[in-house]
Amino acid sequence: MHIQEFQRLIEAMYLAKDRNRGVERTFLWFMEEVGELAEAIRTRDAEGLIGEFADVLAWLTTIANVAGVDLTAAVVRKYGSGCPGCGRFECTCPDAGKP
Amino acid sequence: MHIQEFQRLIEAMYLAKDRNRGVERTFLWFMEEVGELAEAIRTRDAEGLIGEFADVLAWLTTIANVAGVDLTAAVVRKYGSGCPGCGRFECTCPDAGKP
Repeated sequence: MHIQEFQRLIEAMYLAKDRNRGVERTFLWFMEEVGELAEAIRTRDAEGLIGEFADVLAWLTTIANVAGVDLTAAVVRKYGSGCPGCGRFECTCPDAGKP
Repeated sequence: MHIQEFQRLIEAMYLAKDRNRGVERTFLWFMEEVGELAEAIRTRDAEGLIGEFADVLAWLTTIANVAGVDLTAAVVRKYGSGCPGCGRFECTCPDAGKP
């Protein structure tokens, strides 16, 4: 699935509700899912982990929709020409530094 | 760009460093980026926002790589047949409920 295809799927599914809720309240939902992802990692819940990754990605996408950000364009611009730190396709940045 | 293509790009770029760091420390980096996204939303920094969405998606993807989760399979399973709450492609769940 294309990132853009997923963003449109989430837009069709939720944008009307997302807009009414606003970006700040949508961010709270996103954080709730991030917490559930942390829990699934901590408890080594392999099955739950898959669902939590999907939910965090869906809520991140929904914030992008409300904020009017094209995720594909965003990642291509930042990572499409190599690591934003060292410019290589296999990162050689120092371990302590970003990214 | 396909979700899978982006996941492979991030894998090639960072997996060796990610594995050495481990999933818990990688999660801390992810949270740092989530904080920067919150700041860009709060300050209405339109240009910064695009980069922060890219970074949060990249770090989420990197955690998925370390955890061995295929993000495409995860989102198709959870959202590919409609809203996980109501089953429709345009969500009709009550506003107060998830999602």
